[in-house]
Formats: sequence, structure tokens, C-alpha cells
Amino acid sequence: MADLSRLSLNTATVKEQWSLAECIEGCARHGIPGIAPWRDKLHDYGLELAVKHIRDTGLKLSGLCRGGMFPAADEAGRQAALADNRLAVDEAKALDAACLVLVVGGLPEGSKDIAGARQQVRDGIAATLEYARTVGMPLAIEPLHPMYAADRACVNTMAQANDLCDELGEGLGVAVDVYHVWWDPDLEAQIARAGKNVLAFHTCDWLVPTTDLLLDRGMMGDGVIDIPQIRGWVEQTGFEGACEVEIFSADNWWRKDADEVLGTVKDRHLKFV
Amino acid sequence: MADLSRLSLNTATVKEQWSLAECIEGCARHGIPGIAPWRDKLHDYGLELAVKHIRDTGLKLSGLCRGGMFPAADEAGRQAALADNRLAVDEAKALDAACLVLVVGGLPEGSKDIAGARQQVRDGIAATLEYARTVGMPLAIEPLHPMYAADRACVNTMAQANDLCDELGEGLGVAVDVYHVWWDPDLEAQIARAGKNVLAFHTCDWLVPTTDLLLDRGMMGDGVIDIPQIRGWVEQTGFEGACEVEIFSADNWWRKDADEVLGTVKDRHLKFV
Repeated sequence: MADLSRLSLNTATVKEQWSLAECIEGCARHGIPGIAPWRDKLHDYGLELAVKHIRDTGLKLSGLCRGGMFPAADEAGRQAALADNRLAVDEAKALDAACLVLVVGGLPEGSKDIAGARQQVRDGIAATLEYARTVGMPLAIEPLHPMYAADRACVNTMAQANDLCDELGEGLGVAVDVYHVWWDPDLEAQIARAGKNVLAFHTCDWLVPTTDLLLDRGMMGDGVIDIPQIRGWVEQTGFEGACEVEIFSADNWWRKDADEVLGTVKDRHLKFV
Repeated sequence: MADLSRLSLNTATVKEQWSLAECIEGCARHGIPGIAPWRDKLHDYGLELAVKHIRDTGLKLSGLCRGGMFPAADEAGRQAALADNRLAVDEAKALDAACLVLVVGGLPEGSKDIAGARQQVRDGIAATLEYARTVGMPLAIEPLHPMYAADRACVNTMAQANDLCDELGEGLGVAVDVYHVWWDPDLEAQIARAGKNVLAFHTCDWLVPTTDLLLDRGMMGDGVIDIPQIRGWVEQTGFEGACEVEIFSADNWWRKDADEVLGTVKDRHLKFV
């Protein structure tokens, strides 16, 4: 019997409605035990206040969103990204997050060299990992759907993420988001291959039709993803972390009352995850 | 030095402006030696008239778009798809097309079983191939971008298409469209693996940002795809067919004067393909 004990709310799901403080209160009020904040809302609130508030409510962080965005057109840009990633590692540690999620970044401005961008991503992760190990914060590469290869993340399959984990080693893992990977014919095998490296599991749904590349994700059950099947594969690795709901939905869920959204999240988590 | 001798116009590029007869005249007038009709326009014109018109102008068909769409919710639907594919094979043969392009289809209505859809695709191709061999018409599986996995094609990588070619054998190949495959980290290796099975090469570009999942493709040079690199990999297989321009662009190229579009196609083919 499914229950809510594994549920976590990624704050992007009510991005337009609530501040981080309101998200924390909302999760506590709705009996959702996990939360995954985005750093922009974290910075709006202030790290120390957020740490205290989260500790007081007993919420667990299934992840901090996000580090990454490593490629840049010049060395100054790459160094700035590394500095920001070290800061993100520190914030994740202060919040006792299960992991820092990495959205690795796409092509630098004006570039068509995706192999080069992937090399920059590899180097950026390696440098960040070196620091993250010193503070004991796991990094989770989130492979993003191939439609984001140019502008958001050039790691687009579980296989690529697993290859990076194999190469770079201890402290590095993968965030499996059903939206990004559901189409992959190699998904079951690559989740099994990831094994203990699965650090996060994100849910939402793929709508048919999808009207926007970024902001038209569906609520679980409204689309075509067989979420329980993927959850099964993830849990066969031994993963005992949260099912983190993350829905970007400019024209639908972001326009609804946030308490109603959280009610629906709970209902759909029980029925479709 | 690049020239126009390999250029082909997929009629979808001027879908809103021209009938098939106008596309044929337009290619002849612009010195574009190849054409790839869609079957809806072919049916509007009539097969015999189209065959005669194309023969009179000396255009070569780089492919006929399209067969496929194999999965269906019931056996009657699957049989209807097979009948339509046999008809498409006959039409491709009458037009002396280089291949019949297969957009294989996605999930049947109401289904979340993508593995099942892929099995239906495999079986549909196998049945169609049996017939296509009897008339000598090559079938080209077009792997579609993963963002179309649900509603258009559940073959989403070159690796999948190559696996099907390996399994089903003689008479089956692949259509490489840069739009669908440019993001694939395994692309170079999978094109090499396809070898003589590469039957078609389609060009356009990936815009950043992309404002619509289907109808916002870019003209070559306006996006981020390194087309010459992919063309090089394709031609290293020995492929000597056309570079077929196929651009779905509701808000831009479909709104322009078609002669202007063809002029731009020629210019961009020389500069960016």
C-alpha cells in the first residue's frame, strides 16, 4: 500500500504561488515529509532562516536544485560557474540535502560544438566533485530530455550520466526524472547499471500534446508515462529516497491555488506513482 | 566545393504555399534536382499525373513521406496501417523513389506501454518489408526526436533503428534527419554502424529557443546543429544520396513567399550543409 512517507515537494511545482517559507509551511500542513527547494527561492529567504525553518518542521530535503551550468564561452565564465557550484554544495550541506542536483548546462553562446560542451561538463563536474567530497555532499547528475541539449543540459541519457559516474567515481550519482528519461529504450538496463548511484527520483507526467518545451509538464496520471514501472526499476536498485514531484506548468498548475495543487499531488502520488 | 547537385526539397518545407505540382515546377525553376513529396499532396494531385510531371522535369525522388504509424489500439487498426503501408510502397515504386520513409508511430490511444508499441512497430515493419522486397522498394526508418516518442514515433535513436535493421535485414535502412539525432552522444558511432543502410539524409536546424515541439524547425544556419559534421559522418558510410531539406515552420518559413524560401534553401545549403 502506497503512502505519503516517501513524498517530497519540489518547490518549482508551486513556483508562481509560494515563497520557500510558504512551501515549508505548506508541506508541514499537508503532511508531505520532503521538500526540494530551488536556490533562487532559498536566496530570497536567506540560508540561515531556511535551515532553521526546515529543521523546526522536521522536513527532509530530497535534494537542492540546482548546481551545474558548467559550459561557458570563456574561462572566466567557467570559473564563475565553478565558484557558484561550490556555494551550492555549501548550501546543500547546510540544509542537510540528500544531494545537490546538477543540471549540467548546454552549448555556450554561439557554439555548435556539443562534444566540446560535454567535455566542459565533465571537467566542471570533476572539479565540483573534488570539493563536494571534502564536505560530504553527494552530487546527482540529472540527465535532461534531449530537447534541452542545446540550452539546458547536454547530458541527455542515463547512459551518459552512468559513464560520468564510472569515470569520476565516489560521491557522484544520478537523479532519475521520469519526464526526461521515460522514452529511453535502454532505461531499465541503465537504471540497473546505476545501482546505488541513484540519488534522486523525480515524478510528473508527459502530456499529449505538450504545448511548450519547458513549461507544460503534467501532473502524475495526466500523461503517458508508466511511472510505477520506472519507480519499480529505481527501487530495485535499493533506492529508499523520496518520490519528488517537480512540475513546471505555466498555464495550469502554476495558476491554481497552491493548497489545491498540494492536495492533488498527494492524491496522484497515491494513485499513479 | 559544395554545389546544388545533391539538394532535394521536401515538400513540407513549403507546405502552406504550394501544391505538389507547384513544388515540382518550383524545383525545376530553381535548379533543385531532387524532391520528396508527402503523400497527402501526392493524393491531392493524383499519382499518375505526379509520376508524369516528375518524369517530364527529370527530378529525382530522395524519398516518399511517409509510411509507418504502425501501432494501433486494436487488430483492425493495425491491419489498416499495414494496408496503407503497402499502398505507400506501391506509390514510392511508381515514383521511383530512393526509399519510402517510415515514421513508425507512437503509443496507441490510451496506452502507456511503450515497449508494447515498439513491438508493434517491429512487427509492422517486418510485414511491410516482406511486401516491399517483392517490388524492390527500400524502407527507411526515420528515428524521431525523443520528444515525439508518445505521439509520432517510438523509434527515437539511431541505435534502435540499427537494431531493427540488424534483426529484419535486407531492404531496410535508416533516414538520418539532423533535427532528430543531432543531440545523440552516440551519433557518430551509430551512423558508422548503419553503413550502407543509410538511405536518406535530411537537413534543417534546431533553433534556440524552440517555441513549438513540431512546427518551429529552423533553416540551416539559423540554429545550433553542426550539419557539415553530421553530413561528413553520413558520407563516410558511402552515402551518395541527396541532402533533403525538410522544415516545418508554421510562423516563419510557411508564411513567406515560396520562391523566396527556395532561394534561401539553396543559399543555406551551400553555406551550412
